[in-house]
Amino acid sequence: MTIIGHLIDGTIQADITRMQDVYNPSTGEPSKQVALASVDTVEQAIAAAQRAFPAWRNTPPAKRAQVMFRFKALLEQHADKICELIGEEHGKIHHDAMGELQRGIENVEYACGVPQLLKGEHSRNVGPGIDSWSEFQPLGVVAGITPFNFPAMVPLWMYPMAIACGNTFVLKPSERDPTSTMFIAQLLQEAGLPDGVINVVNGDKEAVDVLLTHPDIKAVSFVGSTPIAEYIYSTANANGKRCQALGGAKNHAIVMPDADMDNAVNQLLGAAFGSSGERCMALSVAVAVGDQAADTLVAKLKEAMAPLKVGAYSDRENDFGPVITRAHQEKVRDYINSAEADGATVVVDGRNPNVAGHEGGFYIGATLIDNVTTQMQSYQEEIFGPVLQVVRANSMEEAMQMIDNHEYGNGTCIFTRDGEAARYFSDNIQVGMVGINVPLPVPVSYHSFGGWKRSLFGDLHAYGPDSVRFYTKRKTITQRWPSSGVREGVSFAFPS
Amino acid sequence: MTIIGHLIDGTIQADITRMQDVYNPSTGEPSKQVALASVDTVEQAIAAAQRAFPAWRNTPPAKRAQVMFRFKALLEQHADKICELIGEEHGKIHHDAMGELQRGIENVEYACGVPQLLKGEHSRNVGPGIDSWSEFQPLGVVAGITPFNFPAMVPLWMYPMAIACGNTFVLKPSERDPTSTMFIAQLLQEAGLPDGVINVVNGDKEAVDVLLTHPDIKAVSFVGSTPIAEYIYSTANANGKRCQALGGAKNHAIVMPDADMDNAVNQLLGAAFGSSGERCMALSVAVAVGDQAADTLVAKLKEAMAPLKVGAYSDRENDFGPVITRAHQEKVRDYINSAEADGATVVVDGRNPNVAGHEGGFYIGATLIDNVTTQMQSYQEEIFGPVLQVVRANSMEEAMQMIDNHEYGNGTCIFTRDGEAARYFSDNIQVGMVGINVPLPVPVSYHSFGGWKRSLFGDLHAYGPDSVRFYTKRKTITQRWPSSGVREGVSFAFPS
Amino acid sequence: MTIIGHLIDGTIQADITRMQDVYNPSTGEPSKQVALASVDTVEQAIAAAQRAFPAWRNTPPAKRAQVMFRFKALLEQHADKICELIGEEHGKIHHDAMGELQRGIENVEYACGVPQLLKGEHSRNVGPGIDSWSEFQPLGVVAGITPFNFPAMVPLWMYPMAIACGNTFVLKPSERDPTSTMFIAQLLQEAGLPDGVINVVNGDKEAVDVLLTHPDIKAVSFVGSTPIAEYIYSTANANGKRCQALGGAKNHAIVMPDADMDNAVNQLLGAAFGSSGERCMALSVAVAVGDQAADTLVAKLKEAMAPLKVGAYSDRENDFGPVITRAHQEKVRDYINSAEADGATVVVDGRNPNVAGHEGGFYIGATLIDNVTTQMQSYQEEIFGPVLQVVRANSMEEAMQMIDNHEYGNGTCIFTRDGEAARYFSDNIQVGMVGINVPLPVPVSYHSFGGWKRSLFGDLHAYGPDSVRFYTKRKTITQRWPSSGVREGVSFAFPS
Amino acid sequence: MTIIGHLIDGTIQADITRMQDVYNPSTGEPSKQVALASVDTVEQAIAAAQRAFPAWRNTPPAKRAQVMFRFKALLEQHADKICELIGEEHGKIHHDAMGELQRGIENVEYACGVPQLLKGEHSRNVGPGIDSWSEFQPLGVVAGITPFNFPAMVPLWMYPMAIACGNTFVLKPSERDPTSTMFIAQLLQEAGLPDGVINVVNGDKEAVDVLLTHPDIKAVSFVGSTPIAEYIYSTANANGKRCQALGGAKNHAIVMPDADMDNAVNQLLGAAFGSSGERCMALSVAVAVGDQAADTLVAKLKEAMAPLKVGAYSDRENDFGPVITRAHQEKVRDYINSAEADGATVVVDGRNPNVAGHEGGFYIGATLIDNVTTQMQSYQEEIFGPVLQVVRANSMEEAMQMIDNHEYGNGTCIFTRDGEAARYFSDNIQVGMVGINVPLPVPVSYHSFGGWKRSLFGDLHAYGPDSVRFYTKRKTITQRWPSSGVREGVSFAFPS
Repeated sequence: MTIIGHLIDGTIQADITRMQDVYNPSTGEPSKQVALASVDTVEQAIAAAQRAFPAWRNTPPAKRAQVMFRFKALLEQHADKICELIGEEHGKIHHDAMGELQRGIENVEYACGVPQLLKGEHSRNVGPGIDSWSEFQPLGVVAGITPFNFPAMVPLWMYPMAIACGNTFVLKPSERDPTSTMFIAQLLQEAGLPDGVINVVNGDKEAVDVLLTHPDIKAVSFVGSTPIAEYIYSTANANGKRCQALGGAKNHAIVMPDADMDNAVNQLLGAAFGSSGERCMALSVAVAVGDQAADTLVAKLKEAMAPLKVGAYSDRENDFGPVITRAHQEKVRDYINSAEADGATVVVDGRNPNVAGHEGGFYIGATLIDNVTTQMQSYQEEIFGPVLQVVRANSMEEAMQMIDNHEYGNGTCIFTRDGEAARYFSDNIQVGMVGINVPLPVPVSYHSFGGWKRSLFGDLHAYGPDSVRFYTKRKTITQRWPSSGVREGVSFAFPS
Repeated sequence: MTIIGHLIDGTIQADITRMQDVYNPSTGEPSKQVALASVDTVEQAIAAAQRAFPAWRNTPPAKRAQVMFRFKALLEQHADKICELIGEEHGKIHHDAMGELQRGIENVEYACGVPQLLKGEHSRNVGPGIDSWSEFQPLGVVAGITPFNFPAMVPLWMYPMAIACGNTFVLKPSERDPTSTMFIAQLLQEAGLPDGVINVVNGDKEAVDVLLTHPDIKAVSFVGSTPIAEYIYSTANANGKRCQALGGAKNHAIVMPDADMDNAVNQLLGAAFGSSGERCMALSVAVAVGDQAADTLVAKLKEAMAPLKVGAYSDRENDFGPVITRAHQEKVRDYINSAEADGATVVVDGRNPNVAGHEGGFYIGATLIDNVTTQMQSYQEEIFGPVLQVVRANSMEEAMQMIDNHEYGNGTCIFTRDGEAARYFSDNIQVGMVGINVPLPVPVSYHSFGGWKRSLFGDLHAYGPDSVRFYTKRKTITQRWPSSGVREGVSFAFPS
Repeated sequence: MTIIGHLIDGTIQADITRMQDVYNPSTGEPSKQVALASVDTVEQAIAAAQRAFPAWRNTPPAKRAQVMFRFKALLEQHADKICELIGEEHGKIHHDAMGELQRGIENVEYACGVPQLLKGEHSRNVGPGIDSWSEFQPLGVVAGITPFNFPAMVPLWMYPMAIACGNTFVLKPSERDPTSTMFIAQLLQEAGLPDGVINVVNGDKEAVDVLLTHPDIKAVSFVGSTPIAEYIYSTANANGKRCQALGGAKNHAIVMPDADMDNAVNQLLGAAFGSSGERCMALSVAVAVGDQAADTLVAKLKEAMAPLKVGAYSDRENDFGPVITRAHQEKVRDYINSAEADGATVVVDGRNPNVAGHEGGFYIGATLIDNVTTQMQSYQEEIFGPVLQVVRANSMEEAMQMIDNHEYGNGTCIFTRDGEAARYFSDNIQVGMVGINVPLPVPVSYHSFGGWKRSLFGDLHAYGPDSVRFYTKRKTITQRWPSSGVREGVSFAFPS
Repeated sequence: MTIIGHLIDGTIQADITRMQDVYNPSTGEPSKQVALASVDTVEQAIAAAQRAFPAWRNTPPAKRAQVMFRFKALLEQHADKICELIGEEHGKIHHDAMGELQRGIENVEYACGVPQLLKGEHSRNVGPGIDSWSEFQPLGVVAGITPFNFPAMVPLWMYPMAIACGNTFVLKPSERDPTSTMFIAQLLQEAGLPDGVINVVNGDKEAVDVLLTHPDIKAVSFVGSTPIAEYIYSTANANGKRCQALGGAKNHAIVMPDADMDNAVNQLLGAAFGSSGERCMALSVAVAVGDQAADTLVAKLKEAMAPLKVGAYSDRENDFGPVITRAHQEKVRDYINSAEADGATVVVDGRNPNVAGHEGGFYIGATLIDNVTTQMQSYQEEIFGPVLQVVRANSMEEAMQMIDNHEYGNGTCIFTRDGEAARYFSDNIQVGMVGINVPLPVPVSYHSFGGWKRSLFGDLHAYGPDSVRFYTKRKTITQRWPSSGVREGVSFAFPS
């Protein structure tokens, strides 16, 4: 069976003391093994990155950007292969993997503009004859720890910009689906990056804890669940590192009575069930304002969900694939069961989908639950499966209050035609990413990604402008030259 | 004896269960008492700030700026009184207090520009018919914890911008010299700030811990010593807050052989002894490159130090005043003793200055120590007194290595005429604020203040552009309107 | 009779060879005389500005900003007097003059932030060891030529930022109402501006032509009518100056069927009749989409216009005052006559208002004309009086086409609740300043003001961010230091 | 003989009424013919661009950027061919053509970042419930008119950014060497640009005048000589277009006594003789401060010039090639003659170089002239040939005065090690692009290019940040939504 090793200092190396199976969720069978890095292996990766730092830091930003231009081209050239690798280990259908990859490539494009993005601020004459300017210098070695659900995209949120800014990088991707991540990192190497600038170690908590405590790691970017995000954030900070840690979500859409209902339904389908709902921006709760809107919404959703197809990643006709593990499949089923037990109405039931020929796969069909209330466990927690719950509210204010009361604040959306409603919503809602008739309001690569409340720990958001600030430290120089230099001729005779 | 209370919700209130003496360091006598806030008092302040937040947040930035314009005028009008209050409790001479206040006012001026500074980024057509923009919204209630050495300036680094951004504020100033801080906060109130937007609680660790753990505090800015900064940073972060914590310093100047030596000496005097060296940007180590430069430097420094006068704040002719406490006076003396014991040469000895008429004051005279080495305790630790140490290096590279090896990285300076030396230094030195022939490279208010290494914990620096980002959270909105609205005539019949 | 002279090099001087009457339009009587500058007088002003330039250019921006802080305070202190001066010569009612002044003060506030606004861009390592940065340096002497309708505000669009950027200034205000302009310039002088930095010359085309051709004038800002703007622009450019010239307008509001009609009517009243319609942003055409919307709009407008009061500036209860001259009064009447003759319906007729006690004043009452078509002269030309014309369109597309076909493109507005309509409108309409339910979409001072098509000649808009670029020239520095300097010890022996 | 036609609406078309020979300057023989566009042909190109505008304007910026990414790749792929085409018609040696092309590609890279560069400014709450933002919208059809000396680079300064901003383009390149320009435009087409977005018309003044007067041309960018630049600027402006017109230069280097003389000499060689001095940034005057510096400089230059080889473009060992035409060859010789006649010393004489095998080519050898004075015609005018003149000054101030007195202000440089001298120079010199030990201070693509005085007419510089502003017009939207919309339930009944 193939063993997935580590990329350290430009070379793939395995460290086979501890291994873990990697599954094909579409069949339910293990297909590869991933090496879990020891402390020593992680330290080797950090050491390689540390050695590579001085030369890379001194490479002009415009030269660093050239690597990113070539990296973009290689990613486009190998897109199909990458999507196949994602599909095999994650279960994502091709069009969905392609969407993920495309979003990742856009972050590489943004990093191509690093000479512009790194510009500091210059002030002539802050005082008589005194100039001052700020610069944004790289930190050194920085680390990324990324989740299974976007093995291509989330790492690409981090290291292209970190590296373009002059840092070197150690990435610890998810051990569930590491192959596409590793392949992409090798493409970056192929694009001309010097050895040691990008390093990838596979592993588990043992590896993570090295990254969180090693003195040569200057910053940590993390995406995962909220409890882990909280641990990462406080541990990294207590060890003197800067950290941004993105956690869980429960993204609500408010459906107003004046919404274009067909459009809303159409948008919600993709946002709720795409990628089996395993997205931190998945739209998992629809709050209908008024019973009439709710009834219409549920009826139209039910109808629209009928033709949805769950199945193996290898069939591009499927709408979405399996969830990541058998354990997670069970967990999602339990949430549906609990909602039902709590009195909610399971309108469309995906607990036992029939996926002919792939009975061992980890499938959950698209599920619609009505009459959910805020007291239910299935409402309060993140399900991370293809389950859309409908909550009914009597007013927009009540709907907004639900969202603000939830512990998470990642994304949210309103469906309306009314400018005033949209403006009030976007101004006041306590959520970091807001959609107006856009159910997955993931910011484009030249803006930044980040939730509020317990969805993100840190000051600065991921990718986009904030990432430039996160991956650099400000240096401010104040300069005054003494008089009587060569201009005035005094030092012509210097220093006899 | 006067009791200094708290400013909560627009009203001064005392909480006299626990009290502490406030001294006049120029005489060594206690002159007032400061109330130390209980948990309940701090919670009242937070509650007042929380109540004031919604209305203040919704006040247009341009209106919030009007308060800052008036605040600037009031600070200028009451400058002499503020300097007197600073002098009495801190010991600073009038010209030095005026300098501090002036720097503080400049931060208020910067906050006057908040409508410009809060601008978000707008993108038309991130996709077909889709627009996206980011906004920077206030956080809620934020806290500041400030040190004794700049009772006017450091609080003004924080709350003008925090408040101009739409936050409300709870300040915990130093209990050593709280009166000027309190007076200034009252001027802000007088400038038209609604009650509860600025609150000041005096206190000690009990008060601090409430600020670090209370769920309604969203961010903490701190300036003080490194051990406390580290505690503040990890505690605030572990409690889900953003935090910037500025700590200690050991600022070196490299004196190159081609320096304008008279200018360097002149600059060093103020930088080393001004405010008795009780500044986190004080220049406490001069590294002379080459023995010839070192000998010249020491000789000229000795000569230039002769006329320096230490004495009571009330005499404006003095160059600098006492240190803050008797305990601190002893500590500074101990550092000088230890340097001498370690083999350094005390060239000018300020351990026992004669300050006629104020024998009880906490005075240390200007002290110059030559032949200091990096192994000495007096080199490794922050003295925070009027003591300048000279270290000798054989090359610029060796001098830079000393600086980079030191745990602190706040400020540094090079004296040279040579453009290449200055450029190499500013590019490579591991220090956040760099001076070229500027020994106190404190950035102007429209740049940002922050050290590197263990001098600052956090991503974002204090005041200036970084403070806008620190005191706001990014919200990104993505907007697409459904077709078939009023433009296409569908709703022409509305609302018949 | 009072003679209004010139402010040159800090001193008021008259040049009484040629004089012109200044009227009080509320009474129709001349009240003062204004001196019309000779070529020689204008050249003296330019020479004074040229002399003042080097020192002012070298004054640090933060010091220049202090003058603006004081200027703002003085303007607020003297607001009532300024409004009285405006009213007397222009005819504007106090609340309207106060609004104008307030807008002007906001430009001074923006200029207070000049240290931030002047920041250049700094790039470390554009190549190995090479740095590059840009700066924005002042131009030298710049000129402003301003119209009668905003004697306080329009000059304040120009010279505060020009001067804050380090330029010196020669202003040629309107000779119809020069007193408030002159008084305000004197307040700037009182705020601490060095002599010669601001100069004001009153005059006519003779003065203008000196400004357009003199080699020491580096840039010209103009606001007035389109034919003059075009002359100014091409003449200034042909003489090697940069120029921005703002001209006429015909601002349309589209009223959609879903508009909040009461709100729209209320907004239109102020936008159409405020300041007697003598504003380049006056809303003079309402395009109603659909006859039902049109009928409702006209009926509600008629009702709402009934209580409007035209009268002397001295009565603060009046809604608006006279127009600027008897000739202009006739011209406005002629436009109403021509509309009527062309077949339009004069719904409310203000041609002969009764203003008891001020029969000699230049009054026109609020006038509403329905059934206007795009062929009518009164539609095609700028009336600049209190006349609102209603055009009927069958669709939003047709309404937008009218706007795009008009030669002017200053401001426009749509009244709707529909997000899609608003977005389509703001994206596509060929007009520089767009309101969504805002009939006078004058940008705030921290954005910039400018029309499209024949409403503005030049690349850069007035005030706000564009004005910083207009009043400065970019300088880009590229720097590399040779090796073997003092750092490497080579020049220790230099140059023996 | 090959005929070079026009690229209009995606198709090459010839218009053979008027033709002109294109020469190979290395042999002195004509090698192709270029069609000179008639008025009608230019109007067709404008019409094609106008038709292509609406769809291209509505293409999201991120999609437009994709074309630029592909364009960069194609330029790199075809670099050798492009250099051959440049060499054949211009005479440039391969390494020099490659340098030109590389600079051009960097402008394409900058245009890849257009989504970031087009961001507007967004302000929430400019008033209660009122938001405002600015956008930068494309102008429509814009034109570029470019010179012979950089047939690849200068067009790439213009159209990549103009097109990335959403405009469509008509380019009129030099009729001396149009083939590489045309080939590059076809690569852009191949990169996926829709037909009509880029159009190239070859021609002379007849074509230019159409571009300057046609109402559908909204902006003109020009690079060429100052008299033509002035004509272009005033004509375009008088026809209501925005215009930036870059003209001639006379770039001085000040050589200070403390300069690293070997480095200075080395730098000056390339800057003076590279591309036969046919560059607007060529360094054509060295001002030595002090006779000792001058003598050393001249001696070292003479020695370093000895091995320089002038010859045919086809031999990559040559240092530089011929000048563009026989007429220009004569003109350069005349300047050398006149300098000699005026009393200057021709130290190295390139008037009659021996280029074996290419006796018909338009060659001038590297020429060094000492003892030049500011009264000489050869000093006052731009030679545009491989001629370096040395002027002697007694002080830096005197040297700077020479530069400031010259009518041109494109580039300049100082050679020194002294920080103070460099700072004084860069702050005060009246030149737009300043080098410190950098003799060709051409800004990198992410800064902007532009001279001062009579070297540039217009407000905004070429390429870089200024080009974004030049190729877009600002639109400012102010938005307020009426209350009582769907949020408050009023339209709940809609649309029953």
